[in-house]
Amino acid sequence: MSSAQPAWKQKAAAKRAAQYASIPPEWRLQERLPQPKDTYSYLKTSGLLTPEELEITETASAALLLRRMASGSLSAVTVTKAFCHRAALAQQLIRCCTEMFFDEAVRRAEQLDQHLASTGTVVGPLHGLPVSLKDGFDVEGQDSTLGWVSEIGKPAREDAVLVGVLRRQGAVFYVKTNIPQSLMMSDSYNHIFKQSVNAFHNELISGGSSGGEGALVGARGSIIGIGTDIGGSVRIPANLQGLYGLCPTSRRIAWEKSGSREYIVPSVAGPMCHDLSTLELFMEGMLAGEPWLYDPVTVPLPWRKQLAEKPTSTPLRIGYYWDDGHVRVQPPIELATRKAVEALKDAGHKGKKSSTFSSGDCFANLDKVFKWDTTGHDRAYDLWLKGVLADGGSRCRKLCEAGGGQPLIEGMLVGQEKDKLDVERGEAVSIQPVTPRIISSLLNNPSQVAREIRDYQKHYLSRWHEAKLDALIMPVQTYVGFRPKEWVKASVYVGYSSQWNLADFAVVSMPVETEYPDDLPASEEGESSWKEHTPRNESDRYNWEQYDPELVKGMPVSIQVVGGKFGEERAVAVAKAVEEALKDR
Amino acid sequence: MSSAQPAWKQKAAAKRAAQYASIPPEWRLQERLPQPKDTYSYLKTSGLLTPEELEITETASAALLLRRMASGSLSAVTVTKAFCHRAALAQQLIRCCTEMFFDEAVRRAEQLDQHLASTGTVVGPLHGLPVSLKDGFDVEGQDSTLGWVSEIGKPAREDAVLVGVLRRQGAVFYVKTNIPQSLMMSDSYNHIFKQSVNAFHNELISGGSSGGEGALVGARGSIIGIGTDIGGSVRIPANLQGLYGLCPTSRRIAWEKSGSREYIVPSVAGPMCHDLSTLELFMEGMLAGEPWLYDPVTVPLPWRKQLAEKPTSTPLRIGYYWDDGHVRVQPPIELATRKAVEALKDAGHKGKKSSTFSSGDCFANLDKVFKWDTTGHDRAYDLWLKGVLADGGSRCRKLCEAGGGQPLIEGMLVGQEKDKLDVERGEAVSIQPVTPRIISSLLNNPSQVAREIRDYQKHYLSRWHEAKLDALIMPVQTYVGFRPKEWVKASVYVGYSSQWNLADFAVVSMPVETEYPDDLPASEEGESSWKEHTPRNESDRYNWEQYDPELVKGMPVSIQVVGGKFGEERAVAVAKAVEEALKDR
Repeated sequence: MSSAQPAWKQKAAAKRAAQYASIPPEWRLQERLPQPKDTYSYLKTSGLLTPEELEITETASAALLLRRMASGSLSAVTVTKAFCHRAALAQQLIRCCTEMFFDEAVRRAEQLDQHLASTGTVVGPLHGLPVSLKDGFDVEGQDSTLGWVSEIGKPAREDAVLVGVLRRQGAVFYVKTNIPQSLMMSDSYNHIFKQSVNAFHNELISGGSSGGEGALVGARGSIIGIGTDIGGSVRIPANLQGLYGLCPTSRRIAWEKSGSREYIVPSVAGPMCHDLSTLELFMEGMLAGEPWLYDPVTVPLPWRKQLAEKPTSTPLRIGYYWDDGHVRVQPPIELATRKAVEALKDAGHKGKKSSTFSSGDCFANLDKVFKWDTTGHDRAYDLWLKGVLADGGSRCRKLCEAGGGQPLIEGMLVGQEKDKLDVERGEAVSIQPVTPRIISSLLNNPSQVAREIRDYQKHYLSRWHEAKLDALIMPVQTYVGFRPKEWVKASVYVGYSSQWNLADFAVVSMPVETEYPDDLPASEEGESSWKEHTPRNESDRYNWEQYDPELVKGMPVSIQVVGGKFGEERAVAVAKAVEEALKDR
Repeated sequence: MSSAQPAWKQKAAAKRAAQYASIPPEWRLQERLPQPKDTYSYLKTSGLLTPEELEITETASAALLLRRMASGSLSAVTVTKAFCHRAALAQQLIRCCTEMFFDEAVRRAEQLDQHLASTGTVVGPLHGLPVSLKDGFDVEGQDSTLGWVSEIGKPAREDAVLVGVLRRQGAVFYVKTNIPQSLMMSDSYNHIFKQSVNAFHNELISGGSSGGEGALVGARGSIIGIGTDIGGSVRIPANLQGLYGLCPTSRRIAWEKSGSREYIVPSVAGPMCHDLSTLELFMEGMLAGEPWLYDPVTVPLPWRKQLAEKPTSTPLRIGYYWDDGHVRVQPPIELATRKAVEALKDAGHKGKKSSTFSSGDCFANLDKVFKWDTTGHDRAYDLWLKGVLADGGSRCRKLCEAGGGQPLIEGMLVGQEKDKLDVERGEAVSIQPVTPRIISSLLNNPSQVAREIRDYQKHYLSRWHEAKLDALIMPVQTYVGFRPKEWVKASVYVGYSSQWNLADFAVVSMPVETEYPDDLPASEEGESSWKEHTPRNESDRYNWEQYDPELVKGMPVSIQVVGGKFGEERAVAVAKAVEEALKDR
């Protein structure tokens, strides 16, 4: 390293060196790294992992591992080491991690094994379960830099509330995961930990802001990871890596930033995992730890298991859309959403449409699965932007200064794509000039924005209530995949996901198998074919032009199942129905 | 009225004239008003109310009236008219009301009677129950001036969420009640509706900011009234009028200002009534209306009836104090608190104190009813002040300007006590110079204050949890009674009540019979006699000097039963235990 480098670069490099040193030598890859396109498959087939490590880490359902650990047929140490090993390998290929603390994890697993051996009982419902965490969650003794050089070497003095609760329930922590500088992007790059890439395609982004988490879980370096979401930051990486994700209503999952005055749009924490049962198991086990005893913001609502059961008798009442009128989603995404909707209709959730229904309680005569009116979502997107850009970037600028002049990133590492895994090069220096008009109006009156958001939430609550909805279904996002560093330049619209942060509704995102056609025919609803689409705005144009079926073929696509306010259980229940309906096809 | 008066005075007078005109002529008192000291007793014995009206309005338990109405043995119209009549009389004696809309109330009651007659069923669990509301709750078609001239003639376009929910559950609205200008005082005076006084003693205040509500319910012009509380505004008027009051955790009862960004300390809504059963009935019936379907802030927690049941087997673990170290409460208040504590100990909630207990789970060996450490409450009071004075009075000043120069009030109507019921005279013109140092530091960084409050809440949560508390018991306030207009000048300390707004804990306040001695002997704990007390600070000095047993003899005194975060049911359960313990003595 050249000493002519600015101090912040030296500090960042030192942090990366320490990070590398935290990987046991026997888990380090050759100096000349392999460059598998599909890291997940490479780790599965390369022989780097033992058959037992593969069997453990390829398990989708946490319940299976927990049962084996509780019975003593599998030790917590074995499980922990398997995930530590796979995470260490994944980190070297796709840069998904920030802090790695494998020794501490194994020590904790040993304690758990000893506890089980001596008492015959588990410490809690999550006994021995390795859980990975987005970098923002404080773990006692570990840094939470969020990619800011100024924050290096300031280990957390205590666990975040959620971390403490999970720990008491038996979880084992072993790794924290990468994020974009500022957290406000769906491409995870920062000056310390560099560029995370997709677990299935190393020329594509892993998403953000929980992008490292999505990549790690996608590569099966974790069975469940916790991200945070203010506009799609759990759901987008989950989508990009084919995972199940939960974006809860604020105050349901303990997260220090939920309900914070600095966040006008609520920031929430949520899990990403490989199946619905693990998502539910996490929620039930975590809430059984009564986080509301430790966190003044979390509401005392245990997991309402009955509400989350797969609906059986009555047909569900579900609204859907695959086009919110602002940005048209790419063909594989429209197809996935259509497929889920058709599957639900076929599964008997289709009502009779009457031509003679009158006002009043006429829902029995209406379609049970029906198109949802997205009028007003464009205005909501403006409101969301105002809410999340509330401080006009002043916090980021302060952090840059505190870090010795570390630059803000425009988009991601603009124009240096081929060096994306390079440790030393590639920082841009200007901040993206985001809508200064919006920012200045906002700075004058954050309370006004907060009031408008409250009104919107009230309005959407009453729409939900009046339509007697069980759930809404729509895409997570408009695109299948992006190359790193293009995201911000592409004026990406995140309105499909941010809409629900603004409404503060609970959402489960879930993968749906799809196709990757070059074109879509003109629709019955009067929309032109994909190829003949007339762009509606700049974001729509980019999204349309950017679709490259050759590049993204086979990459995962998800839908959102929105369960409404505090509707985590309802979203899970409907997701189960969708899953069953799709299986039956 | 002289036309030389400023426009705002003319507008205020016109509003008062319209208010008077809303009282049916047959319910108007003589031009020369009677001046009973004890309005409650006067209304009971003067013959102004019929025996049936008296029987209805003297009923403490709403359940009794609801049962009779549901069975058809008593009509909703009869009940509504009885409360309208008594409220109209009370208004003329103690100025407790703002808006009165008796015709609308009777029309609604007629609808309810018709519904019952034609369907045989009630519309909801509160069918026919008259409910009075503090002026701040919007009722469609009625003003919500909060005493600001600028707000006259701007009727609400829709019901507040709570009002709508209660209406759907069967409640009948007939009156809104008086408040102090700015809402930040415990003495209810404003330039439009003037001075509310105590239902039991017209030379004493009714409290604030829900002071009109307290006076109306105290005079039995209402069986249940809804106030709001950010520092004691439900509990203080409830105390002063011998009522039960509930200050819930924020987001439990729908209230547009709960969770608003403008309120750094949460503002909450809560009922005031004549017995515990009515308080519980209100909560159960109101929450059954699922306010969270209409309000994005309210959490979906129905009334957990089991938690609110009177504890039977295990001894309760209760902390208490009657002196927080900052301001010593007046003798009747200390005696009431001591009495409740002794009653609980006698009732079997006293544990064995062991001299040999060690650390660990040693609670079995500790007193079940034990003194609570109030260290840090003084710092909390500063924090609370910073939180509630966040805008430095700018909103009030704007409202004054909008009202055509209507002056801010110093304390209350300074120096014109004998004219307190005079319609035309008596406004002061300067705002109380409240702690400009605090305000300016606050204005710089409301987020910092919000963070400190969050930390304090977290700290108190963990204290609660670690002490395994069922409840805490302490006084509501430091004084038994005040003459109007003295309150602010007296530097009144509200730390006994505001402490729980800051912690955001649920509190039931309940009356306890007491004595009114001139002196208290020096205590076992080493406190001097009352007469030999050395004032600790300005607030303490005033409170000590101001105690006048002759003036306040027989006036009600209350204690608080704090149930913790979302501990509404727990507070009710413990209040039941206190009530029983006191009955058994």
